[in-house]
Amino acid sequence: MALTSATNLGPATALTCRECGHSRDLGPHYACEECFGPLEISYDFGDVTRASIEAGPRNIWRYKGLLPVPSHIEETPNTEPGLTRLVRADHLAETLGLTRLWVKDDSGNPTHSFKDRVVAVALAAARELGFKVLACPSTGNLANAVAAAAARAGIRSAVFVPSDLEAQKIITTAVYGGTFVTVDGNYDDVNRLASEIAGEQEDWAFVNVNVRPYYAEGSKTLGYEIAEQLGWRLPDQIVVPVASGSQLTKIDKAFQELIKLGLVEDKPYRVFGAQPAGCDPVAHAFKQGWDVFRPVKPDTIAKSLAIGNPADGTYVLDVARRTGGTVEDVTDEQVVEGIRLLAATEGIFGETAGGVTVGVLKKLAESGTLDPSAETVIINSGDGLKTLDAVAPVVAPTANIAPTLDAFRAAGIA
Amino acid sequence: MALTSATNLGPATALTCRECGHSRDLGPHYACEECFGPLEISYDFGDVTRASIEAGPRNIWRYKGLLPVPSHIEETPNTEPGLTRLVRADHLAETLGLTRLWVKDDSGNPTHSFKDRVVAVALAAARELGFKVLACPSTGNLANAVAAAAARAGIRSAVFVPSDLEAQKIITTAVYGGTFVTVDGNYDDVNRLASEIAGEQEDWAFVNVNVRPYYAEGSKTLGYEIAEQLGWRLPDQIVVPVASGSQLTKIDKAFQELIKLGLVEDKPYRVFGAQPAGCDPVAHAFKQGWDVFRPVKPDTIAKSLAIGNPADGTYVLDVARRTGGTVEDVTDEQVVEGIRLLAATEGIFGETAGGVTVGVLKKLAESGTLDPSAETVIINSGDGLKTLDAVAPVVAPTANIAPTLDAFRAAGIA
Repeated sequence: MALTSATNLGPATALTCRECGHSRDLGPHYACEECFGPLEISYDFGDVTRASIEAGPRNIWRYKGLLPVPSHIEETPNTEPGLTRLVRADHLAETLGLTRLWVKDDSGNPTHSFKDRVVAVALAAARELGFKVLACPSTGNLANAVAAAAARAGIRSAVFVPSDLEAQKIITTAVYGGTFVTVDGNYDDVNRLASEIAGEQEDWAFVNVNVRPYYAEGSKTLGYEIAEQLGWRLPDQIVVPVASGSQLTKIDKAFQELIKLGLVEDKPYRVFGAQPAGCDPVAHAFKQGWDVFRPVKPDTIAKSLAIGNPADGTYVLDVARRTGGTVEDVTDEQVVEGIRLLAATEGIFGETAGGVTVGVLKKLAESGTLDPSAETVIINSGDGLKTLDAVAPVVAPTANIAPTLDAFRAAGIA
Repeated sequence: MALTSATNLGPATALTCRECGHSRDLGPHYACEECFGPLEISYDFGDVTRASIEAGPRNIWRYKGLLPVPSHIEETPNTEPGLTRLVRADHLAETLGLTRLWVKDDSGNPTHSFKDRVVAVALAAARELGFKVLACPSTGNLANAVAAAAARAGIRSAVFVPSDLEAQKIITTAVYGGTFVTVDGNYDDVNRLASEIAGEQEDWAFVNVNVRPYYAEGSKTLGYEIAEQLGWRLPDQIVVPVASGSQLTKIDKAFQELIKLGLVEDKPYRVFGAQPAGCDPVAHAFKQGWDVFRPVKPDTIAKSLAIGNPADGTYVLDVARRTGGTVEDVTDEQVVEGIRLLAATEGIFGETAGGVTVGVLKKLAESGTLDPSAETVIINSGDGLKTLDAVAPVVAPTANIAPTLDAFRAAGIA
């Protein structure tokens, strides 16, 4: 697992501790030697221009010059995620009294969630670092993304999930044919077991554990794409769902990088975090004015945001406060309302995390916390097809009729 | 419903009968006045170049100069489908003994099937023709696409489905909030009722009934995209699923148009049709050497291909014979095997129609009907998330363990 002269991680130069600032060489590390803080990638960006990006492939690899991946990344089979639609959402905007609103619809990714982005970067780095197996603990989207990415790459996957997972999520991972283990325990148990296995199986890359610094960088591509799709411009406001908090902090990092590189104009922007009320440690800490959050036991229909002890929660607080944003939460009822509102106004069927984001957008708009005349972007991070149970109790056909024109007329549908 | 001077259908010039060749003015017509044959759009293409297309939006509207849609189509809210991934499938190719294989993965569309393409074109034309409601009879993918497209466009949808449809498919349409009617009858009953309603409700556009000539043209974009994504080149061989047969014939039409416009080099290509054995009227007719097919009563897990009396079946026979292709069928077991093979080799989870296409590809490769050294493209027209029942009985986790390292070691997974 040692780095060789052939190791190619593009512009990445080192791993730097986010707590104490101690740096170390690139490698399969995720915790600081000095203080056990989380490590983050440092870079030496070369000459990256709008034109060089625009000439790149129609996926996240157009930003390879800003990611810890080899310069020949397009040549290796991968799921080619990203460059999902940025949809102008005039009907939703009008409903909420906003002027200019966009939905970044990441359900268009290969396995229909933003996880394809982070997994693709983790896979690329894991191969360079000499890992042979792509692994993860998961309860859903990540399992799909890892199993699919490994199949596409022609390497082995090893996915660990709680054994009480819905049959539907079992199928959508098992179909890719990798090693797929159900574990008698809850997600915390599975997560702990994954860390233990990572300590023992030297060539297993658990994407969200031992290659997490690389993995997390994949979320930067959401920020790059939003700026590029707006015509190389930052939005005024952005609402991002918070699970581990990594997506939100990396979008902010991406915006900062684009400013430093001169690819967009420097301007203020506000970052808002969105959590479900049943798992709101960061929103709660924000409202209390705390610098650190208190972990919670999740109880929400938004399973993909149900992380009670979010790794990047504290950094989310920092970003929200620094940019003049907030972190807000909504009830499960508001989550369902958010899903329906996005579907009915824009024809986008998001998963529960999308419902959380739309719900928080609505709440922020109604409370006047958002500037209604400022340009706003929200993230739909996954697909409603994966969380049908959330809306099943509240959506139904308009009418049921006999197969005749008389029955149609009598039903008063016309 | 009369055309006005403001009606803008781009390069479309007339409706021409595919049977007798009789032409009439553009309008809300779908059957020939003379012989009741199906009408097809005729065009007068202006100056369409590779550069003009490449400068267009990243969706099907880059080809608006080749479609019956207004020249300002991007300005009207629509789901912006298309430009889905063309994935180089080396692992699948190797498994089947082929040299160069691509998968056109249309599960990346907004509602995850190719139906978003045809519905987007139908919607654009319907608005120009003065219709107020977007409607369809459907059993699945089309219902999703129509309900989503209408929501996005801010107009009313009216979707009719058999009342015994799976709860899952009910939810994925009902969530968009349009008029959604379950009908006590089978799909044929629903289809017949739709035609009757279309005759009575003057401003209802049933996309696959009374605006079918416009709707069907949307499938041409699959052909355009394949050629452009190959670097403005036609493949040697293509395998296309056959339901109504429209997708296959329109891909051929697109290739012919590109040749005539000088956008690709003229060369021979072979078109292969794929049907499930439980609904194989066209494959059967091809094998028997018949010019016309005999309708069947469908009995297959590939519900999205279960059209027993395919509108374009005869034209599929023509295209397959003219190009040196065939029409082949596979059993339901082979469909499931095809889904698993595509998932395990390329990380793409297709719906049953995709399984049919991969199954037929495998059969054609094994029988030597396909040239293994020729460049081949196959279409994955939909998403496995919508047909989970097909694979549920045959995929399962590798192991179930207690949440301990000892249990992991004992399971022999490493």
